[in-house]
Amino acid sequence: MNNLSNQVAFIKEIDKLKYIQRKTRLFNSDRHENDAEHSWHLAMMTIVLAEHSNKPVDVLKVLKMVLIHDIVEIDAGDTFIYDTSKSHTNTEEEFLAAQRIFGLLPAEQGQEFIAIWSEFEEGLTEEAKFARSMDRFEPLLQNTSNDGGTWKEYNVGYQQVYDKKIAIKDGSEQIWKYAEDLIDESVEKGILKK
Amino acid sequence: MNNLSNQVAFIKEIDKLKYIQRKTRLFNSDRHENDAEHSWHLAMMTIVLAEHSNKPVDVLKVLKMVLIHDIVEIDAGDTFIYDTSKSHTNTEEEFLAAQRIFGLLPAEQGQEFIAIWSEFEEGLTEEAKFARSMDRFEPLLQNTSNDGGTWKEYNVGYQQVYDKKIAIKDGSEQIWKYAEDLIDESVEKGILKK
Repeated sequence: MNNLSNQVAFIKEIDKLKYIQRKTRLFNSDRHENDAEHSWHLAMMTIVLAEHSNKPVDVLKVLKMVLIHDIVEIDAGDTFIYDTSKSHTNTEEEFLAAQRIFGLLPAEQGQEFIAIWSEFEEGLTEEAKFARSMDRFEPLLQNTSNDGGTWKEYNVGYQQVYDKKIAIKDGSEQIWKYAEDLIDESVEKGILKK
Repeated sequence: MNNLSNQVAFIKEIDKLKYIQRKTRLFNSDRHENDAEHSWHLAMMTIVLAEHSNKPVDVLKVLKMVLIHDIVEIDAGDTFIYDTSKSHTNTEEEFLAAQRIFGLLPAEQGQEFIAIWSEFEEGLTEEAKFARSMDRFEPLLQNTSNDGGTWKEYNVGYQQVYDKKIAIKDGSEQIWKYAEDLIDESVEKGILKK
C-alpha cells in the first residue's frame, strides 16, 4: 500500500504539466498548447505513425518516452526550441527536476522513469529517435496550419527550421520526406522565409 | 505516402479533443480539465499503476484504450457520469463519431482503433477493466482535492459515487481498497453526503 501512496503523490504532482504553456498554438488557433495536451498528441501520433519508423521499435517504450518527456518542465519551464541563448536538453535544472519529480515514485520505478527520460534526451536508441521525430513533427504541422505560427512570431527562417526538423529523418525517412515537402511548400506560400 | 496523408488528416482532426471540457476540474483548482489532458493523465496513471492490476495486462493495449477512449466526444460531447438523463456509453451518436473520426485513418488502422474503442466501452477484457478503473479513479482523486468538486457542485451523494466507483474493483482490488478509503474519508470530512 505504501507503493500506491507514493504513486498517487506522483499522479497529483504531474497535474501541474497542464499549466506549462508552449510557444506553439493549437491547429488553426490562437490558443497556446500546454505540455499535457502536447504529450497526449505525441502519444497518439506514435500509435498512428509507428509503422513508418526506420527500424522496428518497442512502441510501449516510445509511448512512455513521449508521455513523460516534458514532465521536468514542471520545475524547469518550457524552453523554446529556437532560443539560442539556452540549451534545450540535459540542463542541470532539468536533471534536478527529474530527480525531484520522479523521486516521488517508489525507488525502483523512479529509477526506471529517469532512465527512460535520459534515453529520450540522449536520442541514441531507435525508440528515442522515433520519439524525438514525433516531437519535431507536431509543431511543424501546427505552424503550417497557423500561417507560419511561431516562425513568423519569432522571425525564424528556413535554415533554422530545416536544421531542427532534419532530426525527423533519424526516426523516419518517410515522415521526413513528408515534412520536407511541407517546409518547401511553406517557403512557396511565403509563411517561411528563405 | 497515401497512408501518411490520411494519418496526418486524423492527427489534425483529433486536436479538437483539447477543446472538449469535462465537468471535473484540475487538482486543487477551479480550471476545468479538457479531454486531451484527461487522456494524458490516464495514460500516465496506467504506466505508473499497471502493477496493481488484478490480472496481468497488455499495457500497450491499455494505453491505446485510454489515449483514444474519449475521441468520439469530439462529435458527441462529454456526458457527465452522474447525469441520469443520458446513457454514457455506446450511444448511437458515439458510434457514428467513431465511424467518422477513426474513418479518417487508412482502412485497416481505422478498424483496429474502432475495435479498441469498442473493447474499452464493453469493458469485458482485463485490459478494458483496468483502463476503466483508471477512468473512474482520476476524478475521485480530483474531487477529493477540490473539497468535493463535482459531488458538491451537482449534489451527488455517497451511494451514487460508490455505485460508479466500485468498477475500479474489476481492474484492481488494491486500488479499489485505496479508493474506498478515500470515499469513506470524504464522508467523514463532510465533502460527500451519506
